[in-house]
Order: sequence, then C-alpha cells, then structure tokens
Amino acid sequence: MATTTERLLVTYRVRGEAATIADRAQALAVEQSVEMPLAAIDVPRIATEIVGAVQAIEDRGGGVFDLRISLATATMAGPDGPEAGQILNMVFGNSSLHEDVMLWDIDLPAGFAALCGGPHWGIGGLRERLCVGARAITATALKPQGLSPDELATLAGRLAAGGIDVIKDDHGIADQRYAPFAARVRACAEKIAENAVKTGHPTRYAPNLSGSLDALRRQVEAARAVGIDLFLIAPFVVGFPAFATIARENPDLGFLAHPAMAGAARINPALLYGKLFRLFGADAVIYPNHGGRFGYTPAICREIAAMARGPLAGLAAALPVPAGGMTPARVAEMLAFYGPDTMLLIGGALLSAGPHLVEETRTFVRAVAETSHG
Amino acid sequence: MATTTERLLVTYRVRGEAATIADRAQALAVEQSVEMPLAAIDVPRIATEIVGAVQAIEDRGGGVFDLRISLATATMAGPDGPEAGQILNMVFGNSSLHEDVMLWDIDLPAGFAALCGGPHWGIGGLRERLCVGARAITATALKPQGLSPDELATLAGRLAAGGIDVIKDDHGIADQRYAPFAARVRACAEKIAENAVKTGHPTRYAPNLSGSLDALRRQVEAARAVGIDLFLIAPFVVGFPAFATIARENPDLGFLAHPAMAGAARINPALLYGKLFRLFGADAVIYPNHGGRFGYTPAICREIAAMARGPLAGLAAALPVPAGGMTPARVAEMLAFYGPDTMLLIGGALLSAGPHLVEETRTFVRAVAETSHG
Repeated sequence: MATTTERLLVTYRVRGEAATIADRAQALAVEQSVEMPLAAIDVPRIATEIVGAVQAIEDRGGGVFDLRISLATATMAGPDGPEAGQILNMVFGNSSLHEDVMLWDIDLPAGFAALCGGPHWGIGGLRERLCVGARAITATALKPQGLSPDELATLAGRLAAGGIDVIKDDHGIADQRYAPFAARVRACAEKIAENAVKTGHPTRYAPNLSGSLDALRRQVEAARAVGIDLFLIAPFVVGFPAFATIARENPDLGFLAHPAMAGAARINPALLYGKLFRLFGADAVIYPNHGGRFGYTPAICREIAAMARGPLAGLAAALPVPAGGMTPARVAEMLAFYGPDTMLLIGGALLSAGPHLVEETRTFVRAVAETSHG
Repeated sequence: MATTTERLLVTYRVRGEAATIADRAQALAVEQSVEMPLAAIDVPRIATEIVGAVQAIEDRGGGVFDLRISLATATMAGPDGPEAGQILNMVFGNSSLHEDVMLWDIDLPAGFAALCGGPHWGIGGLRERLCVGARAITATALKPQGLSPDELATLAGRLAAGGIDVIKDDHGIADQRYAPFAARVRACAEKIAENAVKTGHPTRYAPNLSGSLDALRRQVEAARAVGIDLFLIAPFVVGFPAFATIARENPDLGFLAHPAMAGAARINPALLYGKLFRLFGADAVIYPNHGGRFGYTPAICREIAAMARGPLAGLAAALPVPAGGMTPARVAEMLAFYGPDTMLLIGGALLSAGPHLVEETRTFVRAVAETSHG
C-alpha cells in the first residue's frame, strides 16, 4: 500500500485553559481523524499516517488558543481525487458540534488545492468578460420571487438598461412552478441581451442553480442554450459535493457563491468565503457587509476580502461581493473601504426606485465608475 | 396562474426587545421570503401569496421571543415537488447568518410533508428487520479509518460475532484509496454474514455514503449487490438535495442520519434531528448524547428523542441514536432515560477491548437485552 503522508494543516480557535489545552488539542486531533481511543489502534501505520497530529498550540491570551492540527489528505480523497464533502467532513464534521471550537484556517498543500479546482475565471477573468477595466463591478439582484418569467424579464431588462454589470437571481428563486428555471432564464437572457445592445454594455445574467446534481446539470444545460456562462450557487444549500462537481464539469463557466445556510457560526468567515467557497470554484463570493442587515464587523469584512483576493496555493483570486442591505449612498464609502477589486451588489434599494429604476441603476453604475476612477 | 396559498409555519426563537419585536418579526418574514422592501413590490399577488406573514409573537420572558412566520410552500417546490435544499434555503438560508435568530420549529402541512417522503422503515420497520422484538437496539462503529478492506472486515466479523444489531461505518470512512467503497463493503458484508450465521442473529451493516449524487448512486448499487439495505449518511456533508434524492430513489432502503457538519448552532437540535433529517428519509438519527464528548444537555437530548418519535404529519417515526463517547457502563442509565425505542451506539469503548472485543460486544448486547426486558 502506498504511503499516505501528505497533510493539510487546520487551525482551530478554541476557548480553554492553559493547564488542559494540550490534552484538548490531542483530543481534537483524534476527534477529527480516527475518532476512537489511540490505545485501541493496533495497526502502526494508522498512527503515523492517519491520526491527526498536534503541530502547535498558540496562546492568544484571554483564554483563547489556536490549535494547529495536521490531517492526512488521503482521508479526504476518493477515486476522483479530493472530494469536497469529505474535506469539509474531516476538517469540520464533528468539530461543528463543539460549541467552543471554531474552524479558523486551513493551509492546503499546493498540489492538493490545485486538484480541488479553484475559481475558473478569478478576478482577472471576471474583469475581462465583464469589460469593466480596472473599476469596481456593479451588481444587483432580480426579485421578488413569485414573479412570472415575463415579469422577471421585464425587470431584468430595465436593470440592464441602467447599464449594470451583473444581474443575479435572488437566492430564493429556484425552479418553482410560477417561474420554471428554463422559461425564466430564457426570458431574462433575451431581455437583458436586447437592452445590453442598446447600452453597448455586456450585462451578465447569473441565474441561481438549485436542487440535486441532476437538477443542476439540467439547469446549466438550459442556461447554456441561451448563452449564459455565469451562475449563482449556494454551496451549503446544494451541498459541497454538488457544488464542486458542477464546477469541475464546467471549467468554462463562472460562479458566484451565495452564503445562504452558511451561518458561519463556527467557521471563521474569512476562511469560509475566502478559501472554502473559492477552493471548489467560486469566482466571486457574496457575503453580508458591515452596516447592513447582518452582523459582521468591518474587521471581519476586511479579512474576508483579503483572504478572497490573497494567495491560495496558486489558485485564481475570488472577487469579494459585500452585500445585504447596501444602498447607492454607500458607494464611495464601500469603495474607499474595499478598493476597486470588488463587486458592489445592491438589490432592494435599487428596486425601491419603482418607475425610476433605470435612472437609479444608471446613477449607481455611474457613481461606481467615477469613484473607481477618481 | 394557480393560487399558491399553502403555507408552512416556521418558529424562530429570537433575542430582542418588546418595543421593537413586531418590527423585527416583520423584517424576518420579509428576509425569509422576498428579501426586498415591500413598498417596492407592485404585483399584488406577491404580497398575498409569497411574502412571509407574521402569525404570532410570543414573549417567552428574559428578552426571548418566539416569532411564528408562515412561508408559502410554493416557494419550496420544484418540478418534482418539495425540494429539500430549497426548503432549508427558505426557512434557514439568510436567518442562518443572524446571530440572534434560532430556527426553532417547523409545522408542515401533512400533504407537503408526505411528498417529502419521510422514513421508509421507521422505528417499526427497523425493529422488524433487525429482529429485536421490543428491546433497545445495539449498534457500534467500524473504525479507525485507514484500515484496509480486509482489516475492516475482520473487525466487523468480530463485532458481529458479539451479536450486535447494527455495525455502521465511522463517518470518516468514505471511498478512500486505502479502502475503496465497493471492496470494503463487499468484504465487510461477507464477514458479517458469516458470523451472523454462527450467532443466529441478523447483524446489519450500514456503510457510509459520501460524495456527489453520482457517487452515492454508485455506492448504493455496489452495496445492494452484496445484500446491504441500511446506510449511514450525513445530510450536511452530502447536501440535503442529494440526501433527499437518494432516499426517494430507494424506497426500500433504510437510512441512519449522521450529524457531521450539522453544528446546529442556530437550529434547535430537536428540530434538526427529530424533524428535518426525518422529513427527507432518516429512519434513525444519530446525535451527541449528554455526558459524552459533546455539549448537549439532558433536556435537549430528551427533546430530540421526543421529536424523533413524535407525530410528524403522518410520517413514520425515527429512532433516536444517542452517541458520542458512550460506554457499556451507561447502558442501564441510558435505557432508563430513553426507554427501549432507542439505538445505543457504542464505538470506541468497545474497540478498546482489543483481544476481548467479541466478549465485550456480547456483554453490551446482553446488558441491553436484559435491561430492556427487565
């Protein structure tokens, strides 16, 4: 049997006490690998090749410790190489049940990370395809769900007429009876293309993928047929194995990852959005911006953006998409905070313009262009 | 367009203040449905048929409120009926990102729940197939991962020789190179069958399903070929759409749900294990018992068991499987706590018996039989 010595390094941030933290670290290393008493393992190679190993314990003060534990990558790969679900299972399966343990960071061997795929387009590819030069990218959301395909298409057309770069589906829009995927995507794609011709700007439509892997495949096929090459997907809703599979099967497509169901209650948000979503193919990662409807602090948001854009074993960078209750009034502030390698996603606040939707969209687009270049 | 008036009732447990809780409830109803300002919705049927509606606000004291919000089931169904991922997305997608919101309960219309499938075997079906009469069911885990198919099979044979009812894979055992699924399942199934003939007791082997829907299907097929009809599956690892699909495609099979990655940080554990896993096909639900390696209280564990066994829109009951660091010494206490409609899962503590594994297993099995009948 080949040796299975390659490891990835997981950092868990844990509340604990100095006197017992070494035992705690050892227990966690066992929990996340063989999950049984080491004394009961009588096969020597399991101890050396499979059991998690405590590499370092760092006292961060205030009763908080970073435990660095190496786990064998061989436990996370199947016949087709690294398996997304199994990677999450090994690094976060049981630790997710421990209230005082936060999955903080993962360092992956470059070869292993490369086999996971990573973003297809990355920030550079998004910029090129969207024809946006060096400025920040504008995006909005198509909603409310419940509209018919024609109603959604009309709305999409108006947003495109405003010159927006990306129109993504609301993440609640799936394949419902009142707006079946194939029908609404066709209708929206046509209307957006019509309006893009008028503005001369290539607005991209990113429909939401949902359901089982069979459904994802049907949806991708239907969308490809009308020229779509960018998709919204929520990895925690469809499942990481399905997300990774659909991304791997479609190396020419781009993906925006949505945080629905992510919770991030016990995963460092920077790791979740900046590495985990990206690792399996997210070109852009949507997350709740500070000062909106959700609770992340500015510091957390800064770390998410830095990790999404930062180095990751040679994989392409992912574009940060701060969102969740944003308004055109915040454009200058957000661009000062994030810089131009950012997609600004404003949904409800644009839609509130009602009859002035096209103008309001245009104002948003112009503000981003001017601020980015200024 | 047909009316889409059927609703399910979601209870969110929220920290808040009496003066603002009504606004908060309304905001959450919007967040979990159309996710945009209501004033910007100019299609009347969206407001009546799609927007979430606050049904009740209950002050539970101490700054905690239960918000009951009805959501349209039409938003959660696709061309094949209710879609597991979309149900989770609508009831928990964005709320998972709110630190102070816990998804507490869901009341489903009976017809909608029936379309979700529910347990195939249920508690009654498990009892019948496992030939256990009215006593509690015994179970153990096959581990450590890293063992070869032959090594796993030898271990499985010894556990079967001890007369255990169910041997499930450790949830870390997937389709790794050192123990490919088809090879190890065949080896284990044969060895267990051999030993079951000797004891006269039909030990069931429940291999762990992992990977994409394609992989799940391959694994089910390979396992069926060697007579397997019971499986371990972690819905949060494979994704709810994949779990629901593989269950629906195989109405004759039984499923044990594993809590890996569930975290349950912002979902009431009783709801998660007792309803959500069960809704899509879990016949038995594994969860961390109190007094083990995880943090649930006895009260939470009692509620999980009650909800798993309790009524759910006419669906079969699911068997509670308290686990996570259990020992044979706790059999009497656990059976007094849970009663006989329970599967006692003891992994590491049995495996620690080393050369006395068969005897230790037999002792566990006998203790359960005697305590259950006593």
